[in-house]
Amino acid sequence: MTDTTYDNSTELDPRIAARLKRDVKGLVAAVIQQYDTHEVLMVGYMNDEALRRTLTTGRVTFWSRSRQEYWRKGDTSGHVQYVKGVSLDCDGDALLVEVDQVGAACHTGKRSCFLEGGPLPVVEGHRPAEQQNGLS
Amino acid sequence: MTDTTYDNSTELDPRIAARLKRDVKGLVAAVIQQYDTHEVLMVGYMNDEALRRTLTTGRVTFWSRSRQEYWRKGDTSGHVQYVKGVSLDCDGDALLVEVDQVGAACHTGKRSCFLEGGPLPVVEGHRPAEQQNGLS
Repeated sequence: MTDTTYDNSTELDPRIAARLKRDVKGLVAAVIQQYDTHEVLMVGYMNDEALRRTLTTGRVTFWSRSRQEYWRKGDTSGHVQYVKGVSLDCDGDALLVEVDQVGAACHTGKRSCFLEGGPLPVVEGHRPAEQQNGLS
Repeated sequence: MTDTTYDNSTELDPRIAARLKRDVKGLVAAVIQQYDTHEVLMVGYMNDEALRRTLTTGRVTFWSRSRQEYWRKGDTSGHVQYVKGVSLDCDGDALLVEVDQVGAACHTGKRSCFLEGGPLPVVEGHRPAEQQNGLS
């Protein structure tokens, strides 16, 4: 019988670790999305241990590239991210973390870091008529 | 009178370029989200010129780290991403690109790269009762 239970109790399960494609600093990008509204709140970075903590503790933990330390979101601000789901992408270098965000995701007090930075000027694109009406 | 019109015609407007915090390879992460369903489809990377093309042509262009070339999404696959909006985050190292995705975002044929990689085992977190009922 194959044991399909993952063991992240002390280190990231080797079967998960083997799927990660880390950058030169050992990190993967983590997109944080509010689980019910689907708003994209921020992007952070995780090493193996930050991912292990995120998978096992119910709280999002990042690796802070600027401070070079683990950063459990909300410990200082109270703006906790409760984990609802984590998915890895096809090539293992990005995570999608669905959370319940308490308060503001951005350190500036904005709900989303992308609301703080704001929109850039864009020329919109539109699919041709023959690709519309459900023919995508 | 201050000229607030951005000029991305030949190079990325210097006022936008000045806000980017690029990694050692000159790239920023770009989260691609379907504009109407808010599904997160994939994460790619852009240098200044890829961002300029994305802002000005109506089509998403990445910098392919593996092939070391510009990659206008859909040119080979037909799975075009039409640009609806682009936002920069608070510290300038991530972009949120809202698109109308034709067909599959993932090269495997899945709608989203995170559907291809799939969910990791997670212990869900829950906000305490006193933070529920709109008190976030």
